[in-house]
Amino acid sequence: MIVIQGAVRIDPAKIDHIREAARVMIAATRAEEGCIEYAFAEDVVEPGLIHIIERWRDQAAITAHNKTPHMAAFGAALAAFQPKGLRVCAYDAPEERVLIGG
Amino acid sequence: MIVIQGAVRIDPAKIDHIREAARVMIAATRAEEGCIEYAFAEDVVEPGLIHIIERWRDQAAITAHNKTPHMAAFGAALAAFQPKGLRVCAYDAPEERVLIGG
Repeated sequence: MIVIQGAVRIDPAKIDHIREAARVMIAATRAEEGCIEYAFAEDVVEPGLIHIIERWRDQAAITAHNKTPHMAAFGAALAAFQPKGLRVCAYDAPEERVLIGG
Repeated sequence: MIVIQGAVRIDPAKIDHIREAARVMIAATRAEEGCIEYAFAEDVVEPGLIHIIERWRDQAAITAHNKTPHMAAFGAALAAFQPKGLRVCAYDAPEERVLIGG
């Protein structure tokens, strides 16, 4: 499995405008083969800081994801909101350990 | 490094009440030895779904974190809001690969 964590800053006043574009892209991404988790979430103490949370079966799934039309469309939509400081990192994870929950 | 991803559901109407308790706990946690990243964030398309995003130097740092007074205080504060479906998983990550950003 590959775990991804990232973040990007957006004008907090514009988050509601991005929500609909994000909803469409996220639904399409979750339907992709090899997608285990895919979410965007706004920091609870820093408005406008968007966390990117992903888990994928393997690198091939991520490579395919990056070439999808819904990612191209979302990237274009997001660019209009001048996101700042986008940073995304991947972690190869040989094993998942459940710390809390089933 | 150990990467952690988790989620919990809270009544969306109560998120603002949790924010202040979260702010204090998150600041204290980020000051802990071995904490690389620690954030709570609300899903952009599913109100009330809170993502937990963490990275730690090693298991010893996580074990120490779980015994801190600020985590006990936050756990008690959160329980009053009847969180549902808490699930947290850890991933041993030998390497960080930067996909986007510096």
